[in-house]
Amino acid sequence: MQWYECLTKEQVEQVHETSLQILERIGVDFCYPPALEVLARGGAKVQGERVFFSRRLVEEQVKKAPGQFTLYARNPAKNVTIGGDAIAFIPGYGAPFVTDLDRGRREGTLQDYENFVKLTGASPYQDICSGMVIEPNDVPHQIRHGRILYALMRFSDKPFMGSAMGAQGARDSIRMASLAFGGEAELAEKPRMISILGSLTPLKYDERMLGAIMEYARAGQPQLISSLTVAGATGPATMAGTLALQNAEVLAGIVLSQLVREGAPVIFAGSSTSAEMRTGALSIGSPEMAMNTAATAQMARYYHLPSRGGGALSDAKAPDAQAAYESMMSLLMAQVSGIHFVLHSAGILESYSCMSYEKFVIDDEMCGMVKRIKRGYAISEETLGLDVIREAGPGGHFLDKDHTLAHFRSEFYQPVLANRRNFDGWRARGSPLIVEAANKKYKEILAGYEAPTLPADTDKALRRFIEKMN
Amino acid sequence: MQWYECLTKEQVEQVHETSLQILERIGVDFCYPPALEVLARGGAKVQGERVFFSRRLVEEQVKKAPGQFTLYARNPAKNVTIGGDAIAFIPGYGAPFVTDLDRGRREGTLQDYENFVKLTGASPYQDICSGMVIEPNDVPHQIRHGRILYALMRFSDKPFMGSAMGAQGARDSIRMASLAFGGEAELAEKPRMISILGSLTPLKYDERMLGAIMEYARAGQPQLISSLTVAGATGPATMAGTLALQNAEVLAGIVLSQLVREGAPVIFAGSSTSAEMRTGALSIGSPEMAMNTAATAQMARYYHLPSRGGGALSDAKAPDAQAAYESMMSLLMAQVSGIHFVLHSAGILESYSCMSYEKFVIDDEMCGMVKRIKRGYAISEETLGLDVIREAGPGGHFLDKDHTLAHFRSEFYQPVLANRRNFDGWRARGSPLIVEAANKKYKEILAGYEAPTLPADTDKALRRFIEKMN
Repeated sequence: MQWYECLTKEQVEQVHETSLQILERIGVDFCYPPALEVLARGGAKVQGERVFFSRRLVEEQVKKAPGQFTLYARNPAKNVTIGGDAIAFIPGYGAPFVTDLDRGRREGTLQDYENFVKLTGASPYQDICSGMVIEPNDVPHQIRHGRILYALMRFSDKPFMGSAMGAQGARDSIRMASLAFGGEAELAEKPRMISILGSLTPLKYDERMLGAIMEYARAGQPQLISSLTVAGATGPATMAGTLALQNAEVLAGIVLSQLVREGAPVIFAGSSTSAEMRTGALSIGSPEMAMNTAATAQMARYYHLPSRGGGALSDAKAPDAQAAYESMMSLLMAQVSGIHFVLHSAGILESYSCMSYEKFVIDDEMCGMVKRIKRGYAISEETLGLDVIREAGPGGHFLDKDHTLAHFRSEFYQPVLANRRNFDGWRARGSPLIVEAANKKYKEILAGYEAPTLPADTDKALRRFIEKMN
Repeated sequence: MQWYECLTKEQVEQVHETSLQILERIGVDFCYPPALEVLARGGAKVQGERVFFSRRLVEEQVKKAPGQFTLYARNPAKNVTIGGDAIAFIPGYGAPFVTDLDRGRREGTLQDYENFVKLTGASPYQDICSGMVIEPNDVPHQIRHGRILYALMRFSDKPFMGSAMGAQGARDSIRMASLAFGGEAELAEKPRMISILGSLTPLKYDERMLGAIMEYARAGQPQLISSLTVAGATGPATMAGTLALQNAEVLAGIVLSQLVREGAPVIFAGSSTSAEMRTGALSIGSPEMAMNTAATAQMARYYHLPSRGGGALSDAKAPDAQAAYESMMSLLMAQVSGIHFVLHSAGILESYSCMSYEKFVIDDEMCGMVKRIKRGYAISEETLGLDVIREAGPGGHFLDKDHTLAHFRSEFYQPVLANRRNFDGWRARGSPLIVEAANKKYKEILAGYEAPTLPADTDKALRRFIEKMN
């Protein structure tokens, strides 16, 4: 097995060197006094809010972060390895809008949120529940993360994501997880959740992100240290420059996390892409985004860290062919380049602004296909099949062979939505497009979903906690 | 740069060894006396129509085929390198049906054929005209290839594909190319066309294919030696066994080509996939197909030969999301695994049975994206952009920088069809799906297409030739 690599070793070094120069000479703004204090104490040069990092500080601290870790699920069969040879899919994150064929596009609600947790729980291919799979706009902002965390623990037994709403959101997330999983010491030993925090490109971290980064690091809860640089807008219009800038920002955040707690688990997270230059807006269905995913995987490997990149990313406004090819491009690129954590792996439309129910299940099918590709070839005397090839012989066939019956189920991916009938069979069934099959399918899943039992005392403790938040 | 590789070196050896055992012990049927004669003279063991190949014969002959060659275009700027670091896209091949949004699905005609040659000629991403981009069912079978070759040379100045209709089809193709490009000796030196020939899996070659393989090899015209093994139907239900069988068939064909003419240019061509087991039909949108593409690229590299695999392959019946994600999976996999010749790179629906006008231009967009990814990163002091990052500084922006203006056009792929507007902008324009944009686009291209001038004497000679075929 060999990952796809778009950069040579020398080019990886060049990107690394450029980002060290950015960190040493240009610096990064950290707009949060506790972070400045920790960084100064750790050996960074601090001038006002601007922080300069020496090569030595960066290289020493980044080395301390683990190359692999486990996220523990309420159901141990659903524990997730982050790093190594594993890939994890996590549905869309942060969309304010939701859409489906029946009701069209509208603001997301807590009901939609719960529905997407259930769709994630039911999927054999999604590994972790997204913390903000949709913005529940009917819940007041200050208590939103409590309602969300409750739904995550109530409707699924997979690992989940914590709040990114500053130090307070992180602390609440940590407390709620402690209520369910036995105290903060145990939580640090067996992390239950992972959160996404990131820079404000270019070269800035704000109070909200820094507060959460520090809380999660302190509690030993894994986090993505993420940069989303938009080439041509918030970063250079060269993908190389954007990669160097992304790299500098992620390294700076990781240094902070390690100074807060040595060995705090982090993911090297890059989701940079190019701008649509007529508007300056980001384009997430672009080939430049897929390139950045491959390059991010390589940079993370250089630092021996797990990586995040890719997803079912699209700028389309409906789950049409554009949505599908953009999404497959990003999902497959994540897999072939060795990305470990694929956020936004189902449902995203409109450059992150909207979650589609139909697209969620279509993307989930793609995730299943990509995981089949990832599983790859099993090579053995039995699978190489010399005997059955001899048995069939020139001009023969294999349909009725024992070897065929013994293997086809595990060898061939079984599609849930894709139509493989011939044209006449398809037309006889009303010429359905896949989006119609997806519309039926998501309703079927929601109607049949049985949430795993949450122990009554845990449920009570969590409810009491979120009621007090009001 | 490093290609994605799904097999270890040892696994590649195991596949190779298994296929050598197939060739040595099980044998391959060659149903064409002239081929049996050449093979026997070359050292193969021939019993009736069954041919057994020793390890030495295979390894010695396969070594003789070139690792790279050039296809010469009427317009030298459109010459195409096959092998090395190059990738070539060639539209769909062999579909009897054609479809578009306006007229629906119907049998293909010569008019459709010419239209697809024009769409290929106009595309900046398709490199070679497909020889059978659609079956022109309104032209009698015995003169079809003449009409096709004339259309290829009349409406495009790109390299093209020859007829696969046996020795006679190959001879006519070679003669027509000679009329246009100056005789058979010159043609052998500067090949103008490439043809696809292949086995009848399992382990059989028929007269039609063998006649053409021998004619093209003799004339020094490049060809794909192809195997399409359907795992579970015409091959083992294990993808490893199917790969070994494909490998044996392709090697057997290549040995014949080299015995006919040492150094005859060939492409190691694998398009094997899995069966839909309920019907036994092949499924070309399956993840197993993408796996086989990656493995084929590796096997071809092992033999130092150019490879063929992938394409915009789909089992969908309409250019919907299924068609798009299946197609992107296969196209991107071809690129990241280092495939050189991507047949079926635009238009295919219904597991090769139908060409869609709309899908052709949508797939062409995907080909553009994949070629952008292939171009990859340009890494230099200028592109790493330390100066412009300093100029913008923490919290700054890049939209108005000279560096941005100097680079964004060459760095960012400009989509032709993809919609990157925001939701309101999209809705204000009538909420168009990409298939509607594609419908307008293909008509626009056809309406504006100006065929490159074909010299009058060549045109006359070609017309005279095909008139005599009647």
